[in-house]
Amino acid sequence: MAAMRERMTEYIESLQREIVAALEAADPTAPPFNRRAWDRAQGGRGVSCTFTAPDHPSSVLEKAGVNISMIHGQLPPAAIKQMATEHASLADRADSGTGSLPFFAGGISLVIHPRNPSVPTVHANYRYFEITEANSGEPEGSPPKIVAWWFGGITDLTPYYLFEEDVMHFHRALKEACDAHGPQLYPAFKKSCDDYFFIKHRGEHRGVGGIRFDDLCDEPHSLLADDSTPRPRKADEIFAFVKACGNAFLPSYLSIFERRRGSPVDEHRRRWQLIRRGRYVEFNLVYDRGTKFGLATPGVQAENVLMSLPETARWEYMSDVGTEEGSEEAKMLEVLRNPRDWV
Amino acid sequence: MAAMRERMTEYIESLQREIVAALEAADPTAPPFNRRAWDRAQGGRGVSCTFTAPDHPSSVLEKAGVNISMIHGQLPPAAIKQMATEHASLADRADSGTGSLPFFAGGISLVIHPRNPSVPTVHANYRYFEITEANSGEPEGSPPKIVAWWFGGITDLTPYYLFEEDVMHFHRALKEACDAHGPQLYPAFKKSCDDYFFIKHRGEHRGVGGIRFDDLCDEPHSLLADDSTPRPRKADEIFAFVKACGNAFLPSYLSIFERRRGSPVDEHRRRWQLIRRGRYVEFNLVYDRGTKFGLATPGVQAENVLMSLPETARWEYMSDVGTEEGSEEAKMLEVLRNPRDWV
Repeated sequence: MAAMRERMTEYIESLQREIVAALEAADPTAPPFNRRAWDRAQGGRGVSCTFTAPDHPSSVLEKAGVNISMIHGQLPPAAIKQMATEHASLADRADSGTGSLPFFAGGISLVIHPRNPSVPTVHANYRYFEITEANSGEPEGSPPKIVAWWFGGITDLTPYYLFEEDVMHFHRALKEACDAHGPQLYPAFKKSCDDYFFIKHRGEHRGVGGIRFDDLCDEPHSLLADDSTPRPRKADEIFAFVKACGNAFLPSYLSIFERRRGSPVDEHRRRWQLIRRGRYVEFNLVYDRGTKFGLATPGVQAENVLMSLPETARWEYMSDVGTEEGSEEAKMLEVLRNPRDWV
Repeated sequence: MAAMRERMTEYIESLQREIVAALEAADPTAPPFNRRAWDRAQGGRGVSCTFTAPDHPSSVLEKAGVNISMIHGQLPPAAIKQMATEHASLADRADSGTGSLPFFAGGISLVIHPRNPSVPTVHANYRYFEITEANSGEPEGSPPKIVAWWFGGITDLTPYYLFEEDVMHFHRALKEACDAHGPQLYPAFKKSCDDYFFIKHRGEHRGVGGIRFDDLCDEPHSLLADDSTPRPRKADEIFAFVKACGNAFLPSYLSIFERRRGSPVDEHRRRWQLIRRGRYVEFNLVYDRGTKFGLATPGVQAENVLMSLPETARWEYMSDVGTEEGSEEAKMLEVLRNPRDWV
């Protein structure tokens, strides 16, 4: 069987094609996504599929990106040491100060910002990380020995108006994908998602959550109660789980997208959407680890890191929108302040 | 003579009144600034004067805040230790681990975002910080003994279109204010401003700078070549210098505001302005120390910390605006990438 990095690459390539095709089919009169393949001088490549059409105000999408990258290089000792806190398999290497080790990171990352305030924004990413032995003279073409590996992933929804049945549908689809691989995965990963997407200075969550996990491998996992929790444990099993989550993305989101895309829009609803998009910007720039890490990495294109930001956002000082008791906006805020169980 | 904290309080109160009155006079058909006095449970008070008028699209101002605060409390040992690196007078206290000490912080902070893309955004703040002995049984009403004190300040300009004469006028006004207090102040503080307002991940400065200093007191100053540099050195002299900078604000900015407020606006210019405002948001949320510190301080109102954000901002993935050689936008970008000497 092919190495995991190749199987993951093949999977995210096909998932990207499938998601972009589905979005283009849903919005046939809009310009197509802009497909751009790139190579990384230091090793690796990627394909960005982005939608940005400021001169096309009738498109259902406002801004979107569905990007994949498969990069490799040398991981410095400091990074190995940091990763060793979550991965016992790296502890020896970190202690002995072996120097750099080769790594591979492959993943898909997407953000969809539709124009209509009744259609939620959605974000997802699934990734595989691998550290291998420094080349120890294997014959050409034979795979390097793996020192450590893990999968990570997120899918989360950010509505501007609350349609409870939409949120329930979204969470149910993710729960189904999880449950087939272990009944304790969804509750643990749902909580991790709520905890992560919290805008501390506002006391609000970014949206209504979804699932989030990191460092999922054959070692004990920090989000699961104990090491005997039934869960995917071998690389093949975890890969199957990650594919189930990735495959659940379109079913979890697309029917909401279709159901709400024709909802009435007025200035008030649009204004509220843009105020909430300001909060999205606040989360991404102040707290999001991926964004912070991306912006601090030399040589990274800021435009790709900041692809996740909405096309427009508003900041009104002490805005009165959302303060009226019983309003649609106040109902949304209530849920953002107090995450619920949706299934 | 009154204690410095009282003299500074009186000064920033009068400067706030003067600036708000001048802005209201310049925009007489717009709603007045919203004046709000507040008290801090842990000690101190402030007055926020804010302008936000989303339903008043013909106002010259789009969003603005001119705020003062005079707060006091107990400074924890960790903060004293950190401040000791810039203030030798605190080193003994930090070493001996004396515990908390009382502090006072008083300052004015303003941001003005006009609607017209030809009128620059401007930001300024001037502040006084003081640490005193813990109450050691002085008679009621007598001032506590000062352990350490310093002044800090910034004035910087962020144009969207480049009018060289405007930038020269702005810098000339600040240079004049500085020069009367020492010929080496302006060059050192101008460079510090350029260095600070740098959006590293874009390789761009936020604007065309101005002046910036911190920790200015009777101890050696890190921005000045050596301790024999002619400069204001005693508290009275530095206060006079700070007042000169504060008083230079209106003359440095208002004539630009008046000259450009009627400039032609079209969709293209407005779009570029909003893209640049996106960069303003990026700087403030990713790099600005005041914002980071403010958002991380428990009990602070996020709305007041984020008053500096523009009313609206745009993010277009790989926007073509600004890429056309010889365009007005490209000329602005060139200056943002390569700061110039303006006087």
